[in-house]
Amino acid sequence: MNYQRFFEEAIDQIHAERRYRVFADLERIVGKFPRAIWRSNGKAEEITVWCSNDYLGMGQHPDVVAAMQKAAGNMGTGAGGTRNISGNNHPLVELEHELADLHGKEAGLVFTSGFVSNEAAISTIAKLLPNCLILSDELNHASMIEGVRRSGAEKKVFRHNDVGHLESLLQAAGRERAKLIVFESVYSMDGDIAPIAEIADLAEKYNAMTYIDEVHAVGMYGPRGGGITEREGLAHRIDIIEGTLAKAFGTLGGYITGTRSVVDAVRSYAPGFIFTTALPPAIAAATTASIRHLKNSQAERDAQQCQVTHTKQVLADAGLPVMESATHIVPILVGDPELCKMASDRLLGVHGIYIQPINYPTVPRGTERLRITPTPFHSNALVAELKEALVETWNALGIPYRTEGHTEVPKSERIVSLLVPQSGG
Amino acid sequence: MNYQRFFEEAIDQIHAERRYRVFADLERIVGKFPRAIWRSNGKAEEITVWCSNDYLGMGQHPDVVAAMQKAAGNMGTGAGGTRNISGNNHPLVELEHELADLHGKEAGLVFTSGFVSNEAAISTIAKLLPNCLILSDELNHASMIEGVRRSGAEKKVFRHNDVGHLESLLQAAGRERAKLIVFESVYSMDGDIAPIAEIADLAEKYNAMTYIDEVHAVGMYGPRGGGITEREGLAHRIDIIEGTLAKAFGTLGGYITGTRSVVDAVRSYAPGFIFTTALPPAIAAATTASIRHLKNSQAERDAQQCQVTHTKQVLADAGLPVMESATHIVPILVGDPELCKMASDRLLGVHGIYIQPINYPTVPRGTERLRITPTPFHSNALVAELKEALVETWNALGIPYRTEGHTEVPKSERIVSLLVPQSGG
Ligand SMILES: Cc1ncc(COP(=O)(O)O)c(C=O)c1O
Ligand SMILES: Cc1ncc(COP(=O)(O)O)c(C=O)c1O
Repeated sequence: MNYQRFFEEAIDQIHAERRYRVFADLERIVGKFPRAIWRSNGKAEEITVWCSNDYLGMGQHPDVVAAMQKAAGNMGTGAGGTRNISGNNHPLVELEHELADLHGKEAGLVFTSGFVSNEAAISTIAKLLPNCLILSDELNHASMIEGVRRSGAEKKVFRHNDVGHLESLLQAAGRERAKLIVFESVYSMDGDIAPIAEIADLAEKYNAMTYIDEVHAVGMYGPRGGGITEREGLAHRIDIIEGTLAKAFGTLGGYITGTRSVVDAVRSYAPGFIFTTALPPAIAAATTASIRHLKNSQAERDAQQCQVTHTKQVLADAGLPVMESATHIVPILVGDPELCKMASDRLLGVHGIYIQPINYPTVPRGTERLRITPTPFHSNALVAELKEALVETWNALGIPYRTEGHTEVPKSERIVSLLVPQSGG
Repeated sequence: MNYQRFFEEAIDQIHAERRYRVFADLERIVGKFPRAIWRSNGKAEEITVWCSNDYLGMGQHPDVVAAMQKAAGNMGTGAGGTRNISGNNHPLVELEHELADLHGKEAGLVFTSGFVSNEAAISTIAKLLPNCLILSDELNHASMIEGVRRSGAEKKVFRHNDVGHLESLLQAAGRERAKLIVFESVYSMDGDIAPIAEIADLAEKYNAMTYIDEVHAVGMYGPRGGGITEREGLAHRIDIIEGTLAKAFGTLGGYITGTRSVVDAVRSYAPGFIFTTALPPAIAAATTASIRHLKNSQAERDAQQCQVTHTKQVLADAGLPVMESATHIVPILVGDPELCKMASDRLLGVHGIYIQPINYPTVPRGTERLRITPTPFHSNALVAELKEALVETWNALGIPYRTEGHTEVPKSERIVSLLVPQSGG
């Protein structure tokens, strides 16, 4: 065994398959979001980011920035320990109360990331419940898939958002067996929304627990930013609501909310929660400031929806293949991995517009796309620039324009196998 | 299945077994470390923290705090995306260079925590290598155990720091089979150090890869803070050096360093690295400031070692059962879980001194202890107070004093089973 050669060949292989990824080196500019400095080959230039998941620009909000600076100045830069051993800082305790309140739940629990919250919570709950069956939407995120795997519980995958299929699986399992339905509210690559009410009905009928990932919805939907479950008045019908602090709230971390006992069980049993340093007080304080602002202010949500609608309209009017989406996510179909990468490179190099290509296995082959996320800070002028740049790129590379009203593409399972390098994320 | 009742009973059970944990609600005070505000039952009082893993107090260092504040002010509070999709911020790129340089390696890769770095890197490397055998020290941390499990690779556990046992396992596997030796430099509950040179010798002899966790050593050992491998001139003989940013460096996150190709493979294949938001630029910038400071300044390391020696001496002179330790970790044997918890409660409630009890399964039954971590900021006056408080507590609760020179206790495997609530972490 020649280890060095083995890993070199593994990397050569990725290069040969043109799946080697170089991360864009970015420096966002407070006060000028979505503008950022992009460094490449020793040069630095200002560009516009069109694919950030800081969906509302809260990462540059003065109150949020000030809260981080103040907490760092008063309490320092780190937590200094795990939650149990000296790391349980007061801003984190406050943040958990804020999150429980946001979703109308008894308790909240914060993790170092949304990924860890899904992995730790799903695996722990399903492992504790005797002979638990997990019912998992086929398009669930990698972090949920990891949680399901790690639980060791039996799993049945239901077709994406297909309540008929879900019902047949629930029926087969029977009312008595412990069951956990695991799904997302907003699916991030297509921007579609789960039939939450119908899933809650089924959960009641067949006595299943429900676990929803609202990572791409919290902050952005519902009158206080409680997500799609809040908007649709369904939060009380879902057992565990999970979210991230790192997208619309603009900071870092993840969480679950639920009844005191479920949350306490995860707190007491999950290694991924227990054996790791707590989030710094500065992160927690900034997040609480962000959540509180978005609980009281509708302006960011309105501006986001307004710019999303405008962007979809302008791009569709130009004949670009805007894919159907019920949310703030605007995917543009390219349909070929090489072209998708070339389009992204051209947009950045020629037009100073950064949109990361989304290829297999994050999305099915043939549905490769540019995934655009307009924020309140993407002005009409920036939208006009984007349209020009996309049209130029579509023409230069010969990418197909839209043929009908909207572009529909098949959805199918994102394959997350460790032995296929992941092009998503 | 009554889910609510099931989880309530699970929690009742933990209460009944007196393993229910309440986290101390703390607010550390910049400029006054190790002092902190402790909130309990509606009251707030100032106490001294004696169990922080912010080992050098870098979390309050003016340069580190200023770096976080400046980056937050200039670049915002979050990264806004995964490493691949708009989250790769410039301070993070710089941090990875800094870490590679710290350990004299070609490349570095940062994760959201040390836990995630171990889980993601060990599992990915062992999964990629065909038919890999993992050789794992029996006292390895929960995060390493998770990485080993998740890899699906065959595992053999060797007795703690027992190179004879390790050699017999290597020999049995033969030179040709892919092998990964996974161990720590400083074991955090006992403060002992691995025989790194001998393990490196064996790795060479039997052609195994080596992976070391330097989480409790980086920043604190070696002329630039490169850990025990730097102090002993062994960094070049270990393939992957892993560390945390959340202990001596005072912030948050974890990392690996190694050859470009190994690091690139983990970067390309590990879901726990790929599908999660990147660390915020403010965290990265603060960490780089901390590492750079500790590369050039020996003062913190000297002061820490000085106060550690002083603390060990003062407590031993008082007849307290100070356990043998080669490092900055000062464990005091209690030997009973109830007494250990009572001692901790009394120290906090009566003396304003916070030291979390360490019970099974973090340490073997019968070796329950108080784990003390003196920093450069624990003055001689604070050490004197600590001694008084411990003696008063030992007398009040009738905890045994030391009988001979040092206290030796058997080391045995920390059992990390998901179905035993974890009292460590
Ligand atoms: C649906 C979904 N869940 C969870 C996560 C992970 O959240 P975090 O970035 O906080 O780890 C992501 C993406 O990052 C996601 O898209
Ligand atoms: C040996 C060891 N490795 C890894 C970790 C995890 O590091 P982090 O706190 O950065 O997740 C810890 C403790 O937290 C540890 O003790």
